[in-house]
Amino acid sequence: MADENFFAMALEEARKGFEVGGIPIGAVLVSKDGQILGKGCNKRVQDGSVTKHGEMSAFEASAPGTGLPPPASVYKGATMYTTLLPCVMCTGACLLYGIGRVVYGSGADQNLKFDTVKILKSYGVETVCVGDGESEEMMAKWVRENPKRYEREPWAEG
Amino acid sequence: MADENFFAMALEEARKGFEVGGIPIGAVLVSKDGQILGKGCNKRVQDGSVTKHGEMSAFEASAPGTGLPPPASVYKGATMYTTLLPCVMCTGACLLYGIGRVVYGSGADQNLKFDTVKILKSYGVETVCVGDGESEEMMAKWVRENPKRYEREPWAEG
Repeated sequence: MADENFFAMALEEARKGFEVGGIPIGAVLVSKDGQILGKGCNKRVQDGSVTKHGEMSAFEASAPGTGLPPPASVYKGATMYTTLLPCVMCTGACLLYGIGRVVYGSGADQNLKFDTVKILKSYGVETVCVGDGESEEMMAKWVRENPKRYEREPWAEG
Repeated sequence: MADENFFAMALEEARKGFEVGGIPIGAVLVSKDGQILGKGCNKRVQDGSVTKHGEMSAFEASAPGTGLPPPASVYKGATMYTTLLPCVMCTGACLLYGIGRVVYGSGADQNLKFDTVKILKSYGVETVCVGDGESEEMMAKWVRENPKRYEREPWAEG
């Protein structure tokens, strides 16, 4: 499948999150040979979680949930499709597992303190912005509709 | 409480993980005003997880698990006590939440590709190595006793 198909799946994950009141960011992790390893959305709201961003959910979805997680080699050179530019935590997770490419919808909401495109590139990770308006608009809508909840996000503090 | 007391709690978490066959790394997250926000150990083995390192478990333990997670401001200037130097993912999580200090037992097992001490310092995070032999020895013992399982870790690939 082409990038646009995998990105569309990430967008669908973001929509699913939005529909249940969650922060609308979705991600799909695809191995170097084109296999979908995992997909998911941000579950900060749904699970009351500190770390379950979209990308982290995709990583976790690639594991069985009990017993042996996949060997780290499975992730080498994989592509992370995500509707919004990864934060510095998710960037670190991508670096840890040797992700080769990050394809994202929009970088509009990024925390400027951490230039994650620059960080990813400095370790040889390719970054591709597909310029997706829906990713941005969904996030902006969620922030407008959930101002008090948004205040709990690191981004809200600048 | 002093650093040594909180570090001892992180070590106790690592021992608990070791006792059940888990990767023996423990962490305790303490707010700027000395409150324990969360603690936990690496649960890669126990939960078949991709991302549950000791520090991530400590972050997650600071949330109720359902409903609203704490506001991000709670973590500003906090100290992460961890038995082994944080990996690049956990480093990213610390940066995301504005952790002010990282106190770790040993950096012996660190992945040299990512100099996380340098990364943390570059963003103004203080790092303190307490030079704890037990943290190192437990990890070395786990690797010796679980060679096949260890191969699944990113570190094993160099």
